Amino acid sequence: MQFTAKEISLLLNGDLEGNPDVKVHQLAKIEEAQEGSLSFLANPKYEAFLYTTNASVVIVNQDLIIDKPISATIIRVKDAYSSFSILLDKYNSIKLDKKGIEELSFIHPKAKIGKDVYIGAFAYIAAGAVIGDGSKIYPHCYVGDDVKIGRQSTLHSGVKIYHDCVIGNRVTLHSSTVIGSDGFGFAPQANGEYTKVSQIGNVIIEDDVEIGANTCIDRATMGSTVIKKGVKLDNLIQIAHNAEIGQNTVIASQTGVSGSAKIGESSIIGGQVGIVGHITLAKGTQIQAKSGINKSIEEEGKKWGGAPATSYQNYMRSQVIIQRLPEMERKIEDLQKALAALLENSVQKK
Amino acid sequence: MQFTAKEISLLLNGDLEGNPDVKVHQLAKIEEAQEGSLSFLANPKYEAFLYTTNASVVIVNQDLIIDKPISATIIRVKDAYSSFSILLDKYNSIKLDKKGIEELSFIHPKAKIGKDVYIGAFAYIAAGAVIGDGSKIYPHCYVGDDVKIGRQSTLHSGVKIYHDCVIGNRVTLHSSTVIGSDGFGFAPQANGEYTKVSQIGNVIIEDDVEIGANTCIDRATMGSTVIKKGVKLDNLIQIAHNAEIGQNTVIASQTGVSGSAKIGESSIIGGQVGIVGHITLAKGTQIQAKSGINKSIEEEGKKWGGAPATSYQNYMRSQVIIQRLPEMERKIEDLQKALAALLENSVQKK
Amino acid sequence: MQFTAKEISLLLNGDLEGNPDVKVHQLAKIEEAQEGSLSFLANPKYEAFLYTTNASVVIVNQDLIIDKPISATIIRVKDAYSSFSILLDKYNSIKLDKKGIEELSFIHPKAKIGKDVYIGAFAYIAAGAVIGDGSKIYPHCYVGDDVKIGRQSTLHSGVKIYHDCVIGNRVTLHSSTVIGSDGFGFAPQANGEYTKVSQIGNVIIEDDVEIGANTCIDRATMGSTVIKKGVKLDNLIQIAHNAEIGQNTVIASQTGVSGSAKIGESSIIGGQVGIVGHITLAKGTQIQAKSGINKSIEEEGKKWGGAPATSYQNYMRSQVIIQRLPEMERKIEDLQKALAALLENSVQKK
Repeated sequence: MQFTAKEISLLLNGDLEGNPDVKVHQLAKIEEAQEGSLSFLANPKYEAFLYTTNASVVIVNQDLIIDKPISATIIRVKDAYSSFSILLDKYNSIKLDKKGIEELSFIHPKAKIGKDVYIGAFAYIAAGAVIGDGSKIYPHCYVGDDVKIGRQSTLHSGVKIYHDCVIGNRVTLHSSTVIGSDGFGFAPQANGEYTKVSQIGNVIIEDDVEIGANTCIDRATMGSTVIKKGVKLDNLIQIAHNAEIGQNTVIASQTGVSGSAKIGESSIIGGQVGIVGHITLAKGTQIQAKSGINKSIEEEGKKWGGAPATSYQNYMRSQVIIQRLPEMERKIEDLQKALAALLENSVQKK
Repeated sequence: MQFTAKEISLLLNGDLEGNPDVKVHQLAKIEEAQEGSLSFLANPKYEAFLYTTNASVVIVNQDLIIDKPISATIIRVKDAYSSFSILLDKYNSIKLDKKGIEELSFIHPKAKIGKDVYIGAFAYIAAGAVIGDGSKIYPHCYVGDDVKIGRQSTLHSGVKIYHDCVIGNRVTLHSSTVIGSDGFGFAPQANGEYTKVSQIGNVIIEDDVEIGANTCIDRATMGSTVIKKGVKLDNLIQIAHNAEIGQNTVIASQTGVSGSAKIGESSIIGGQVGIVGHITLAKGTQIQAKSGINKSIEEEGKKWGGAPATSYQNYMRSQVIIQRLPEMERKIEDLQKALAALLENSVQKK
Repeated sequence: MQFTAKEISLLLNGDLEGNPDVKVHQLAKIEEAQEGSLSFLANPKYEAFLYTTNASVVIVNQDLIIDKPISATIIRVKDAYSSFSILLDKYNSIKLDKKGIEELSFIHPKAKIGKDVYIGAFAYIAAGAVIGDGSKIYPHCYVGDDVKIGRQSTLHSGVKIYHDCVIGNRVTLHSSTVIGSDGFGFAPQANGEYTKVSQIGNVIIEDDVEIGANTCIDRATMGSTVIKKGVKLDNLIQIAHNAEIGQNTVIASQTGVSGSAKIGESSIIGGQVGIVGHITLAKGTQIQAKSGINKSIEEEGKKWGGAPATSYQNYMRSQVIIQRLPEMERKIEDLQKALAALLENSVQKK
């Protein structure tokens, strides 16, 4: 893809200064940009780069004062950062504009495929599955029996969705993520063996959810594991059977949520956190990376840390003191000696 | 699938009360059941729901006393929970009853395929591989050269098994789990580079093992990494080269077992645990989630927690005290002041 | 594969003692070897096994003194361990010598495929992708638009590489690893929703890198996430957008590196470690398993442990003291009582 400065300026409704015919073919940070790059300047901290950058075109804020000669063509807009974000989105939507059904795909005769859908080679759409309009199913995806996928959703290469799961509109699932595998349910027997508890529920993923790569969301034993509207999950996350993740909650990589746990809406959970089963976390809960949450949190909008977790302030204070433990131990010893000396002294005096 | 109350009653050898012709097409919890659902009541705590449920059919214990009018058809059985479990299993075995070899699969002429096998489209069965009778290989599975898979085993979509690995009977592997990737073995060189140590062993998975999604089990450097009979592993677990997991041991999600570690039989290991290499854990060891185990455990049947781990009691006590550390520090300071005052006082008296 | 003792002796330029015609078909440890096995003895600790092993051929050091009768054929070489390693590599290179393009693969007409390449069935090579000479792309790999892969690299079954990523020479990627999925970037909105920040950068993996199974390396927001030459990553690792892993650094399983973190060269990082974003770790940094690193490390070549991490020595000392906390608390109580008694006593005396 290649565009002239003039074309970009028209697209952004900006004011152009410099050569309108210079061409750009990539987007780059102002400090790393090469010739042929389009860049932007929004943060005043980076202003010095404007005079040294190799970018061919730079988008800047309307009121920026340029007081030295520059080589790049300038496009002035109301908000340089937003304008650049628009271009990022545009770039990606052109770059990732896949359409049509590739020949080596498998679509069961009893599957229903919407309009303007992309289905890559080696994708497997099972009986009873429904793919909504404008959705993209990349190669090697598995869409099991009776799975419903809404409109404008994207399954990147290698996503696996087990039978009966429901995926909303504008959902993005990254590669090798698994939706609807069996919950980890086994009943211990007298002879030490375990027998499997059949997992006949499903997973429901609501609209506008994005889930990273190699994440696992297990199906419910009965009923549904639910990922509510607007949730964002990172890579390598474990969501166990019958869990529920509240609307607009964000969870970082490698965190695990155990069975039947309910995370309140608008929560922010760091990476490598562990959350035990059958507890409820209040709306707006924030959890420090690596924490372990072993009981319900009822107060809304609070920060927690540690394993087991306490309030974030307590956690931070305890962490600092842990590093002073050797010193504390020494102080206790000193006290013991001083007291012993004092006692001996007072005994001798008698 | 749709059944009448009468058909279910006959299947469970139960006594029917109410309309025998009412039809059900799904299984549900009594508190969530809609019309057309089959449910059960085993726990007396849920008895009130019997009179309000929308379920069309409810399975109950033989001796249950029903003292108010109810709308659902009742089936009385000896043990309502067991009967319902039987139906869950039945439901799943019908639902997941895949058979036959789909056209777009790859089966090497030198592979051997048993009777009543399912091989999905885009499954790859390499030279020398053996698939036992009644096993199911879902789409996108990779069964490498000379891999042996026993009878009645299921590989869900996207399971990858490297060459020479051996899988037993009635084994279930969930999506995108990887069996037999190279162990993490590299020899440091004088110039700071690492050279790979060839990993020529394999993985052996014995009968009745279930392994979750996106789990990794590395092949041995030489010999075998072994997952013994009846082991249940959750999602996103790491089992390193030459490790051995003892019979009927259960491991929760995101735990890592390092190279050549041996976990005793009938152990229960929580999520996000780390176990260092070359150690042995005794039979029946129980490990708290998030713990780090850095040395062998010789005593059987004990509980451990913390990182590094101590006995569970010690761990719990230390965790409580950590939260009192700020208070402890204050007490030490108070003692120091009091003692200083006392000493000064006694000096002054002299 | 089957070889005679004589053939192996010639290959290793060794001196043979015993039957030159005995045949071996597998490699095994001396203590586990069966008839038909080739083994080696390098460590004197294992010398006793030489007289009891069932191996048919054993490679030993030139100067080994054999003072009892043995059944195996002996091959004397300068360095038994190195010679055996050579055979391991040889074995694997024969075992894994895949070549040619299998029929059911998808190669876009605009992709460029080098010489002596293996492309398995169900592999997908997108438009603009380049596969270098001698590289192996196993079944179910996805090589996205414009991806470049160098020479002699191996992508095991199910590797997914998103568009525009660059893979060097002699790189090995294990099954279901995902390269170039979107970085976890979302901008919070006033109404509590998050909007996606388009991720238009890529991932660059330099030469001689090996990456385990089910690992995730996210593409940069802009610019590149970079895995430098010679890096070795284990299974289930998370590398976030714009991170940089220094040359010859080794990272164990289940560790997470957050966005824009830079790990110095020749570092050694244990398993289940978490590293926060936007920090820099000095060259040669060593981090204990399960640690949490929350600030930059400037001093080179030091060991760290704990969460949050301190120097390894401090960490180890604190860990020991944590286990003595109950005892410390008791001592403080004793001091308080003793002091109280003392004070009361001194008051009474007045």
